[in-house]
Amino acid sequence: MGLVVQKYGGSSVADAEGIKRVAKRIVEAKKNGNQVVVVVSAMGDTTDELIDLAEQVSPMPAGREFDMLLTAGERISMALLAMAIKNLGHEAQSFTGSQAGVITDSVHNKARIIDVTPGRIRESLDKGNIAIVAGFQGVSQDKKDITTLGRGGSDTTAVALAAALDAEVCEIYTDVDGVFTADPRVVKKAKKIDWISFEDMLELAASGSKVLLHRCVEYARRYNIPIHVRSSFSGLQGTWVSSEPIGDKQVEQAIISGVAHDTSEAKITVVGVPDKPGEAAAIFRTIADAEINIDMVVQNVSAASTGLTDISFTLPKTEGRKAIDALEKNRSGIGFDSLRYDDQIGKISLVGAGMKTNPGVTASFFEALSDAGVNIELISTSEIRISVVTRKDDVAEAVRAVHTAFGLDSDTDEAVVYGGTGR
Amino acid sequence: MGLVVQKYGGSSVADAEGIKRVAKRIVEAKKNGNQVVVVVSAMGDTTDELIDLAEQVSPMPAGREFDMLLTAGERISMALLAMAIKNLGHEAQSFTGSQAGVITDSVHNKARIIDVTPGRIRESLDKGNIAIVAGFQGVSQDKKDITTLGRGGSDTTAVALAAALDAEVCEIYTDVDGVFTADPRVVKKAKKIDWISFEDMLELAASGSKVLLHRCVEYARRYNIPIHVRSSFSGLQGTWVSSEPIGDKQVEQAIISGVAHDTSEAKITVVGVPDKPGEAAAIFRTIADAEINIDMVVQNVSAASTGLTDISFTLPKTEGRKAIDALEKNRSGIGFDSLRYDDQIGKISLVGAGMKTNPGVTASFFEALSDAGVNIELISTSEIRISVVTRKDDVAEAVRAVHTAFGLDSDTDEAVVYGGTGR
Repeated sequence: MGLVVQKYGGSSVADAEGIKRVAKRIVEAKKNGNQVVVVVSAMGDTTDELIDLAEQVSPMPAGREFDMLLTAGERISMALLAMAIKNLGHEAQSFTGSQAGVITDSVHNKARIIDVTPGRIRESLDKGNIAIVAGFQGVSQDKKDITTLGRGGSDTTAVALAAALDAEVCEIYTDVDGVFTADPRVVKKAKKIDWISFEDMLELAASGSKVLLHRCVEYARRYNIPIHVRSSFSGLQGTWVSSEPIGDKQVEQAIISGVAHDTSEAKITVVGVPDKPGEAAAIFRTIADAEINIDMVVQNVSAASTGLTDISFTLPKTEGRKAIDALEKNRSGIGFDSLRYDDQIGKISLVGAGMKTNPGVTASFFEALSDAGVNIELISTSEIRISVVTRKDDVAEAVRAVHTAFGLDSDTDEAVVYGGTGR
Repeated sequence: MGLVVQKYGGSSVADAEGIKRVAKRIVEAKKNGNQVVVVVSAMGDTTDELIDLAEQVSPMPAGREFDMLLTAGERISMALLAMAIKNLGHEAQSFTGSQAGVITDSVHNKARIIDVTPGRIRESLDKGNIAIVAGFQGVSQDKKDITTLGRGGSDTTAVALAAALDAEVCEIYTDVDGVFTADPRVVKKAKKIDWISFEDMLELAASGSKVLLHRCVEYARRYNIPIHVRSSFSGLQGTWVSSEPIGDKQVEQAIISGVAHDTSEAKITVVGVPDKPGEAAAIFRTIADAEINIDMVVQNVSAASTGLTDISFTLPKTEGRKAIDALEKNRSGIGFDSLRYDDQIGKISLVGAGMKTNPGVTASFFEALSDAGVNIELISTSEIRISVVTRKDDVAEAVRAVHTAFGLDSDTDEAVVYGGTGR
């Protein structure tokens, strides 16, 4: 008898009908002889509604109370799901993050899991119950306060529980059929990927693919937990994410896994920086001290006549204000002429372990962009990824051109729903 | 510096505006030099909406999961309230029932508090915080499961915390100005009571007055915690409920505290019972075994010709079906001809410690009913209460007649809002 962890997102349990449909699917997994642990997100728009309420009473909700508020959403969905399962004649028990033993640090709103002690879950499973666990939440080790894990937190809960319980697989149910070779909203001929390695999935996630978040894939890789991303609305096989193709499934590793894009970033250019040692360090120490994560960095060739250069970097738009403020505040310490802020950029990334051994990939990538008339502003590469920054308006066309150039287009337009709550 | 426990019902925190208004009032109490603990119910109709959802996924929601579901409501309101207070520049921390140390038995949906260990609350107060506690919920001592306290549970939470923290007063904020001499929806000239003893309040609550529930008053009497029932919409003094009038307030004890009525009961008549020892016992053992609480009981005089008698009793309408089923199932054991079920009854009760020493009260009560043309079907009395059962349609008229006869009418129609969530 295997142990399966299933995770259902908010769009899968958006209303009573959704909850009943999901309950049936869970009972089926149980009937197939598995021990079943289910991680569930808040129903549909619950979280957004709670955030709205918080903003109405306070412009800057405090971390601890904000977490307490948001976790109410999962309590509702998990209790309803347990009831729906019982109504189908099977035993189910729901557990909060704290009851499930999800221990985190004390960083409210984006806590990190530091331990999982699923004693109560194990006990409940051994009694023959289906265990329902609230996603996205835990309890802080030192203060015993309720914490939340931030965006994508429910996926992380599922993978962490799967690791702690030594599950055979962590199934992530969502409203799409799996991971695609590109965002199907942009590329109609995007194909569902049957299997993808942890490494390629990590790069896709880091490059803007929203189906699985980076953190969750990282966790799964560390504990070698296979993830199966699939739709809760169909019975189709989805995408397996694992170190090696699972079981007798002989999947050939593709040269290119997919094309990701991201329009959530902005570019800051620090203009007129003296071209001498320590300048870049001063800039990025300032940014790091403000606790801002940056993505790509490029330094222009210095103009010989002035001895000054420009340094550009990209970062999430949401951090733009904070970064500008931090740099301005430290202007004399760093020494620069001016700052330029540009939020009309987009990033296109090509991901695939195969590019390591296929030297023509980079050239083909740039040719495809050039043929589509797309201008490149920044370039960054890893062993298995190439990313470029372009104008935001060029992104969709660029993604389609690259997708076609690498032979990723499907013969048909695959019908998919795309969206979801990102929890 | 005193310690004050304040409780706000669902109608007081129905929306963001309500929460902000309540936050201001709480901060005022803090500014007046008090340590403040606030118990809060779920916002407005949240609980009813959650019950609706539960019924959509399962016709008979299970106790444990149902409690988990309902407690989400208070988590939302308490977190929002804490945020609103912080936004006014004061420190606040919210606590679930479990975090606040509200320990209960394991009877889901109507758990009883067996201990309160408010260590975290005390600690938070000592740091200068305002402590916000979720009403209506606790954690079971043996299983560590989330429990709810049933109707009126938030009031009980407030009184229990006040007792455990040795508070000076437990203020129950609601949408009425206090306890009235009769239900103002029925008696326009009902007067607000300034002070009432625990004993009279207990009788009023047992007789259908809904402002405070019996259980909460009982708890307050046991630990001698003065309750101040008042409106969260005005600054007016409300009704003090305590063993003796508080401080320098010289309130004369009224002969009659008020007139209560109740139309939530039904009457069952067991027809044709042999008039011999043990018959009544057999009937009420059957009812007790079905865990049904009954209210009034009356046995008719036996008809000499047949040796048979009838026994009538009243009980909550919601228990009617269960009682009939239990009696029918044990028909041969008890021995009776038939059962009659009547849910068109109402109860009118006159309450006041003064009636012990004023022999004319009972007579005046019956005269008033007779003058109003109201027929009496059952009578029951305690030392400080007389209750009668009449036709349901006669109740309003009967209450007004009695209220006038005992000189309780106000000179003016006092404007009040009446309603609330009963949590």
